[in-house]
Amino acid sequence: EAMPRSAVELRCQCVGTRSRFIHPKFIQNVNLTPSGPHCKNVEVIATLRDGREVCLEPTAPWVKLIIKAILDK
Amino acid sequence: EAMPRSAVELRCQCVGTRSRFIHPKFIQNVNLTPSGPHCKNVEVIATLRDGREVCLEPTAPWVKLIIKAILDK
Repeated sequence: EAMPRSAVELRCQCVGTRSRFIHPKFIQNVNLTPSGPHCKNVEVIATLRDGREVCLEPTAPWVKLIIKAILDK
Repeated sequence: EAMPRSAVELRCQCVGTRSRFIHPKFIQNVNLTPSGPHCKNVEVIATLRDGREVCLEPTAPWVKLIIKAILDK
C-alpha cells in the first residue's frame, strides 16, 4: 500500500508502490525523488486529478512510458 | 526567469525555463506536470538541495537524461 508524505521529509515517502496501470488522464503531476541518504529507493509519486497521491513502481514499463509521454507532449 | 508556484494552482507555474545544466547531485526531486486546460506547457520543476525551485526545459536533452537516470538508478 502506498502512503506518500511530504517531499521534504528526510526518509522514504512510500511504504510500497502500486503496480496497476493508471490512465494518464487521471494524473495531475508526477514527482520523482532520486535515492539518497534519506531513502534507498527511487520514489515516483503521482498526484491524481482527485488529489490522491499514489506511489508508482519506478521500474514498471508503463510508469517509464507515462513519464516519457509527459515530456514528449 | 523561472518562478514556480504551488503545484495545485490552476495556471502555468513557470514563467520561463532554465536551460543551463544542473548536476544531478544538486537535485532533490523533479516534478512533472503534463500540459492541460490550466497551462499549455509541460512543466518540469526541479527542487534543489538548497530548497530552491527551478523550472527546467522539458525538451532539453540533459533534462530527459537526468529523469531517465533517476528512474534507472
